[in-house]
Amino acid sequence: MIELLQNTFYSDIPITRAMNLQVLKYDGMSLTLRSPLVPNRNDKGTAFGGSLYSTAVLAGWGLLFLMTKERHIQADIMIHESHTRFMRPVNGDIEATCVFNSEEQIDRALRLFSRKGLARFHLNTTVTADDNQAMLFEGSYAIAR
Amino acid sequence: MIELLQNTFYSDIPITRAMNLQVLKYDGMSLTLRSPLVPNRNDKGTAFGGSLYSTAVLAGWGLLFLMTKERHIQADIMIHESHTRFMRPVNGDIEATCVFNSEEQIDRALRLFSRKGLARFHLNTTVTADDNQAMLFEGSYAIAR
Repeated sequence: MIELLQNTFYSDIPITRAMNLQVLKYDGMSLTLRSPLVPNRNDKGTAFGGSLYSTAVLAGWGLLFLMTKERHIQADIMIHESHTRFMRPVNGDIEATCVFNSEEQIDRALRLFSRKGLARFHLNTTVTADDNQAMLFEGSYAIAR
Repeated sequence: MIELLQNTFYSDIPITRAMNLQVLKYDGMSLTLRSPLVPNRNDKGTAFGGSLYSTAVLAGWGLLFLMTKERHIQADIMIHESHTRFMRPVNGDIEATCVFNSEEQIDRALRLFSRKGLARFHLNTTVTADDNQAMLFEGSYAIAR
C-alpha cells in the first residue's frame, strides 16, 4: 500500500517529486510522510511553510486514499477547508502524521458515503521537530463519488 | 522590486523554481503571484491544494518583504497562523493576490515594530478561477527584528 501511494503521489501530483516526498509509515489508522529539508527550505534555512502545508495536507489525503483503496471504494478526495498553526521552526526533515480519531469515525462517514455519495472527514495532522509539536494542521476533507 | 522578489524566491525558497512561480504585479499595496498549472496539478488535473497554499502564503510574505525593503527595514517575515477555504477547483494557472487593508494598517504595525521589534499583519489573499473566487487564504504573519 505504501508503494501504491508513493507512486500515486509522484505520477499524479508532480510537485511531490521536487519535494522528494516519501511515504514512511502506514498502519490502517495513521500515515506518516516525510519531506527532506534541503529541497523544502526557506530563506531562514528552516522548512518552508508551503512545504509544511503540502506535506500535512497530503498526509490526510493519503490516509483517506489508502482507507478507501483497502475497502475497494472508488472516490475522489478533496481538501475543503484547513486551519494551520506554526508553533516553532522545523530545522530538519518534515515528518507529518495524520491519524483517524477512531474506527467509528471511518464507519460513520462510510455509511453516509454509501447513502449520499459524499462524506466529510475532519482530520488533524501534526509535525514535530526535536520531539516538540512544530505545526498543527486541521483539515476538513470531502470524499465524493 | 519585482525582479528582487523573483530572485529572492528562486534563491532562498528553492521549491518555487519547481513550481515555476512568477511575480506578476506589485503596486505598493498589493502583490500578485502566478504558478502555472502543469507543474502544480493534482490527480484531478486541477491545481494542487498545496501549491495553491504555497502561492497564497508567498503572496503575503512577498508583499511584506517588498513593503519592508522599500522602507529600508531589516526584518524576518514569518507565517504564524492561517485559515484556508477551497471554494472551487482551479482549472488553469494559479493567480494569488494579497492586498493590505489600508495604509493605516502598515503605519500602525510599523510603529509597533519600531518600539518592540515585532508586529503582526493579518492579510487576506484570494485566488480566482474564471472570475470567481476559488480560494480564500487568511494569514497572520509576524515581522521581527
